[in-house]
Amino acid sequence: MKQVRIGMVGYKFMGKAHSNAYRVLPMFFPNSTAPQMKVICGRNAEALEAARLQFGWEEAVTDWRELLKRDDIDLIDINAPSNAHKEIAIAAAQAGKHIFCEKPLALTLADSREMLAAAEAAGIKHMVGFNYRFAPAVQLAKKLIEEGRLGQIYHFRGQFLQDWIMDPQFPLVWRLQKEIAGSGSWGDLGAHVVDMARYLVGEFAEVIGMSETFIKERPIASNMTGLSATASGENTEMGQVTVDDATLMMARFENGALGSIEATRFAGGHRCTNGFEINGSKGSVRFDFERMNELEVYFSDDAADVQGFRRVLATDPAHAYMDAWWPAGHTIGYEHTFTHEMVELMDAITNDRQPVPNFVDGVKCQEVLEAVERSIEQRRWVAISEME
Amino acid sequence: MKQVRIGMVGYKFMGKAHSNAYRVLPMFFPNSTAPQMKVICGRNAEALEAARLQFGWEEAVTDWRELLKRDDIDLIDINAPSNAHKEIAIAAAQAGKHIFCEKPLALTLADSREMLAAAEAAGIKHMVGFNYRFAPAVQLAKKLIEEGRLGQIYHFRGQFLQDWIMDPQFPLVWRLQKEIAGSGSWGDLGAHVVDMARYLVGEFAEVIGMSETFIKERPIASNMTGLSATASGENTEMGQVTVDDATLMMARFENGALGSIEATRFAGGHRCTNGFEINGSKGSVRFDFERMNELEVYFSDDAADVQGFRRVLATDPAHAYMDAWWPAGHTIGYEHTFTHEMVELMDAITNDRQPVPNFVDGVKCQEVLEAVERSIEQRRWVAISEME
Amino acid sequence: MKQVRIGMVGYKFMGKAHSNAYRVLPMFFPNSTAPQMKVICGRNAEALEAARLQFGWEEAVTDWRELLKRDDIDLIDINAPSNAHKEIAIAAAQAGKHIFCEKPLALTLADSREMLAAAEAAGIKHMVGFNYRFAPAVQLAKKLIEEGRLGQIYHFRGQFLQDWIMDPQFPLVWRLQKEIAGSGSWGDLGAHVVDMARYLVGEFAEVIGMSETFIKERPIASNMTGLSATASGENTEMGQVTVDDATLMMARFENGALGSIEATRFAGGHRCTNGFEINGSKGSVRFDFERMNELEVYFSDDAADVQGFRRVLATDPAHAYMDAWWPAGHTIGYEHTFTHEMVELMDAITNDRQPVPNFVDGVKCQEVLEAVERSIEQRRWVAISEME
Amino acid sequence: MKQVRIGMVGYKFMGKAHSNAYRVLPMFFPNSTAPQMKVICGRNAEALEAARLQFGWEEAVTDWRELLKRDDIDLIDINAPSNAHKEIAIAAAQAGKHIFCEKPLALTLADSREMLAAAEAAGIKHMVGFNYRFAPAVQLAKKLIEEGRLGQIYHFRGQFLQDWIMDPQFPLVWRLQKEIAGSGSWGDLGAHVVDMARYLVGEFAEVIGMSETFIKERPIASNMTGLSATASGENTEMGQVTVDDATLMMARFENGALGSIEATRFAGGHRCTNGFEINGSKGSVRFDFERMNELEVYFSDDAADVQGFRRVLATDPAHAYMDAWWPAGHTIGYEHTFTHEMVELMDAITNDRQPVPNFVDGVKCQEVLEAVERSIEQRRWVAISEME
Repeated sequence: MKQVRIGMVGYKFMGKAHSNAYRVLPMFFPNSTAPQMKVICGRNAEALEAARLQFGWEEAVTDWRELLKRDDIDLIDINAPSNAHKEIAIAAAQAGKHIFCEKPLALTLADSREMLAAAEAAGIKHMVGFNYRFAPAVQLAKKLIEEGRLGQIYHFRGQFLQDWIMDPQFPLVWRLQKEIAGSGSWGDLGAHVVDMARYLVGEFAEVIGMSETFIKERPIASNMTGLSATASGENTEMGQVTVDDATLMMARFENGALGSIEATRFAGGHRCTNGFEINGSKGSVRFDFERMNELEVYFSDDAADVQGFRRVLATDPAHAYMDAWWPAGHTIGYEHTFTHEMVELMDAITNDRQPVPNFVDGVKCQEVLEAVERSIEQRRWVAISEME
Repeated sequence: MKQVRIGMVGYKFMGKAHSNAYRVLPMFFPNSTAPQMKVICGRNAEALEAARLQFGWEEAVTDWRELLKRDDIDLIDINAPSNAHKEIAIAAAQAGKHIFCEKPLALTLADSREMLAAAEAAGIKHMVGFNYRFAPAVQLAKKLIEEGRLGQIYHFRGQFLQDWIMDPQFPLVWRLQKEIAGSGSWGDLGAHVVDMARYLVGEFAEVIGMSETFIKERPIASNMTGLSATASGENTEMGQVTVDDATLMMARFENGALGSIEATRFAGGHRCTNGFEINGSKGSVRFDFERMNELEVYFSDDAADVQGFRRVLATDPAHAYMDAWWPAGHTIGYEHTFTHEMVELMDAITNDRQPVPNFVDGVKCQEVLEAVERSIEQRRWVAISEME
Repeated sequence: MKQVRIGMVGYKFMGKAHSNAYRVLPMFFPNSTAPQMKVICGRNAEALEAARLQFGWEEAVTDWRELLKRDDIDLIDINAPSNAHKEIAIAAAQAGKHIFCEKPLALTLADSREMLAAAEAAGIKHMVGFNYRFAPAVQLAKKLIEEGRLGQIYHFRGQFLQDWIMDPQFPLVWRLQKEIAGSGSWGDLGAHVVDMARYLVGEFAEVIGMSETFIKERPIASNMTGLSATASGENTEMGQVTVDDATLMMARFENGALGSIEATRFAGGHRCTNGFEINGSKGSVRFDFERMNELEVYFSDDAADVQGFRRVLATDPAHAYMDAWWPAGHTIGYEHTFTHEMVELMDAITNDRQPVPNFVDGVKCQEVLEAVERSIEQRRWVAISEME
Repeated sequence: MKQVRIGMVGYKFMGKAHSNAYRVLPMFFPNSTAPQMKVICGRNAEALEAARLQFGWEEAVTDWRELLKRDDIDLIDINAPSNAHKEIAIAAAQAGKHIFCEKPLALTLADSREMLAAAEAAGIKHMVGFNYRFAPAVQLAKKLIEEGRLGQIYHFRGQFLQDWIMDPQFPLVWRLQKEIAGSGSWGDLGAHVVDMARYLVGEFAEVIGMSETFIKERPIASNMTGLSATASGENTEMGQVTVDDATLMMARFENGALGSIEATRFAGGHRCTNGFEINGSKGSVRFDFERMNELEVYFSDDAADVQGFRRVLATDPAHAYMDAWWPAGHTIGYEHTFTHEMVELMDAITNDRQPVPNFVDGVKCQEVLEAVERSIEQRRWVAISEME
């Protein structure tokens, strides 16, 4: 069994999540091809070396181009800020490296298409980091739909609700700056829900959205890690928030289902409510990432006196990936979605097939994201077909 | 303490709910003016007499005009099918009778405005039946918002989900016929949520909607009571469903909040999920009518280690109307919302003030409903100000 | 269809609940024999007359013996304080009146047996007020067990948790005085759970209990209604609490199941958690009165990937009594349990059969209650057979 | 910062859990002393080598005595079957090795006391594996109690409910054999709840229990891993189940609180409900391991209109250990309790203090376990002081 040798660009929140997945994978999925944590890459040499030691990479380099030149790197893992994805990915593809790229694939649909074209031209394997697909409860929803156990889908109701920037004194971190993040709640949170909708229900046909920036000015950030930050001090200079705090949209899917998605960072009490409900002619499912081990499932053909949503704890051997972990009822957490994602990545490379989700999914997600943005600017319904 | 003598037009689902409220009120609210159940009115003399006996009305008449001529009737309660509201209400107003009218006020905005004008011209008291406002948990939400305990409102997320017509064999009852019902899920269910949004958040500024009829043909109904019905038999003739099965909308409120509402009869597993969530700068509330005694409440200024949604069982003496019923923890049900509604009605008449919600609320709700319908037809955002 | 003419002794919390049930019954159960609210009886003439007017009784008398002499009374409803039950019931039976008696049947097992003997000797109909049996969700649990859908029962886990006397300044109301109430949490709350266990699982074989009075002295009460009260003032005299604040017990049932029950008034946050969970070889059910419209149901033979507790909203036509009320999803409340109870009472009298639960159930419940009390005093397991 | 070099005896369920904790710890707790995964030990050389490779240990040996002779081992981690704990632990102590021992410390109280005595005589550090203490939600409960925010504790209500052996065809694995496991549900599951009670409420004063073996004969197992197993075939030989399927107990704590614990493997629908509720004079907390990231918290001094259990998602920086993992709202799983446990172990060794919980806690837990067993045999209350 051969290894996949990895060069990873980025070492913050996602870099930590990916590193952990690579470390943990061989222990719980011993039959999988093992990822080899070869080289970590970042611009700040000192912080990078600390990350290298902490995460357990063999080497560190400060220029990602070096990774592309090396023969002992099979896969480039891109989790640098979103505005760097495109350049690295295209160069990596051209260098013949497989690519794992965090979402969003790029800042614009055009960029994401260039990345896909480059990847396809190079004939490499490419994957995009929609990790939430890999929660076993979500996999169960997918299975129920694919097996027809929910019937024809009528409704998709998705939301990603957070509250981490509700304090007006929370500083202007990079995720609130359009030139780096590309988008606010919509690109960061909405992207996950758009992907979930595509994964579970199918392609979008037309969309219309609305958005708002509730807090328009914030203190300039002096320091930023993960989702937390501190302002520089009392007399902090203020800067413009250039992304959306909240975005809502409605949609019609190609199969006739109706959909709605809301992404907001202003829903007090919701730390990470990434959820959806799907209603079909035979049943319904409900998911909330804050209770990620659970899927609520309803079947309309249950006996008339005992119909109701079941709380399925998706930790049984009958549930995807769970026989690798602990006995039934012993739950897993956020980071496990990444481990499962990397199991798919390793398996696809080993078996010479494209992993899923890949850049095609990244592009199609971007089409929807950008169609919604266009619909907001032009205050009208936008067909996804317009985006082609 | 004088009585209010009532003539009621209609004796089906709502007629039963109102009758029960009138009967129960004096026992639990002994300090309230007592409603006197004088005359019940309907077209089918036999069924009407059965209802009279069952519900406890003194007399029955088959022509509502008779009610208007009598001196011993103070209030006309209109819960006949929606297409009959306008004529009765205007005549009642002109006869100087106070009016309680079920929602929707009328089939069209224009009609509802005529009704309001007639009521105002006559100087009578008028009320519209948005009964869900009167759940103590909803009253608590209102109180928290009015007292500023949720801060500035950012989001209203409303929904009314049912599943009673998902079976394609469910027959074509009057609620599925536009000429009688005026509208489907939107007018029946959405109207309640629009009113709730107005009550709790304030006036709508602009809206855009979408809708769908999933099952376009149904068997002709031979029989219909409440929300149930039976088809005529195996070789039943089919008829067109002329109303919406589901409607979604997005909105901007005058105060800057963002809103969304979904009304559907195709959400399997939801018998009566009339719910909302509101997020403000200081806190959030959540309500689901299937658990109508509960309000979930979040405050962002709770101590950092114990923040979370509280499940408040709104059955304490601190909660509206609850000292009239049972000790804390002893829950109430659907019908109690009508009793509280009638307490407001009796109190307003006694104290010579307009009850709330009244025809103004009925008209404003209709403005939003019709603005959404226009936005669906014209596939564009519609400002409420356009409706004037 | 004949009426049942009622004389009711008592007019406080339970008197109000019974009166409401009698009033409401004919409207929602028009095919049932109608209760006729003939005479209400209490010692305080002034308060009694107010109650008569408020509740809607035809007459009022201050001596319950008068009720027994009248020909126009068929049934005596006893909801006076527990220490008065025995005398009234025995006299009523001897006078040939049917009896509805609130729980607990009497202060002692011996007394309750005398009452049963008198009732049986007189050949009258007798019923005891274990109203919680009549929640439709509980009826569903009963049905599932009777139909074998839960298999062999292994576990009954019951509890009745309240918190209304946790404040040490809450005064010494009659429910805290042994000579009137007979018992504290155990007789008041535990009795309901013991009855529920017998109803659903079967007869107890042996028991052992423990109890505690956490607050041993309280201010003398100046005023007491329902479950609330006010102390006389700041320098209030203190009195001894002579009943238990909390009682726990373990049990073995005759069918081999294991059981536990906890009754306490010191469970902060629980206003009225009257609940149970039952585990059988094929499934489980869970109930909490604070969500009385719901039964959680688990079946072990559900497909392996969708096993989980279902939240069944017991408001469908498939659920007991619910077709009398509102459409599916429209919930009912505490008081409805009494209405259903009275439907059973009317039906039994009409059809010349004993209602269920009757004095036999009252006696058997008392056997368990008293066996637990003996086990507490003697610090040992007590077989129910010892109580005979 | 020095390392702690570990020799681990056992490589099944707990061996995997511990190995994962040792591997993961340095990445998420970089300031902690790092565990060095030196030698893994087991009797089956082939399976052991597979485990060594999978889990990432440097060496493997088949005789645990070898570990004690080596200078490069600082700590012996004992997770072999319970009947092997004593011999290994005493020898390890005598060899001057620190010890981490899985629960239960030993099969008998006497054995556990010998182990403690040996550990104390040797002056080594010793810890026992009550991992559930280390869920951040449990740590929050501890903090609230220690800070007096729940007031005086009145009630502890604990349970550990599972359902993995309800099928009568489930084979006779070692956990169902008294000579290896020592006890059934009580020693396996009850031990965790007893420890939780001691941790949160304090020492037990007296106890009484009951237990049952519902399925008395089972097929002989041919294969057993973790909690799953397969029977040998159709005509499998049957063997006696010699441990309890379910055990219940009641208790009085030294501080006057009342307690109850139920441990069962026959609660259908419960995969791993390790839970408790604690009621104090100022508030209550509730925990269920199936939702291990949540603690429900009630405070009686919340404003009268918004009292209710809060669902606290214990994933904020304000919660123990959580700043090491992911942003707020990103949950953790079962295995993280072991990582936190090992952080405590490393910290204690580094700072030359005893870790908590240690062998004293193991002995005190065993006292309660054995007192309950005695109370079951002798059908009487047993004081913990009797066990000394």
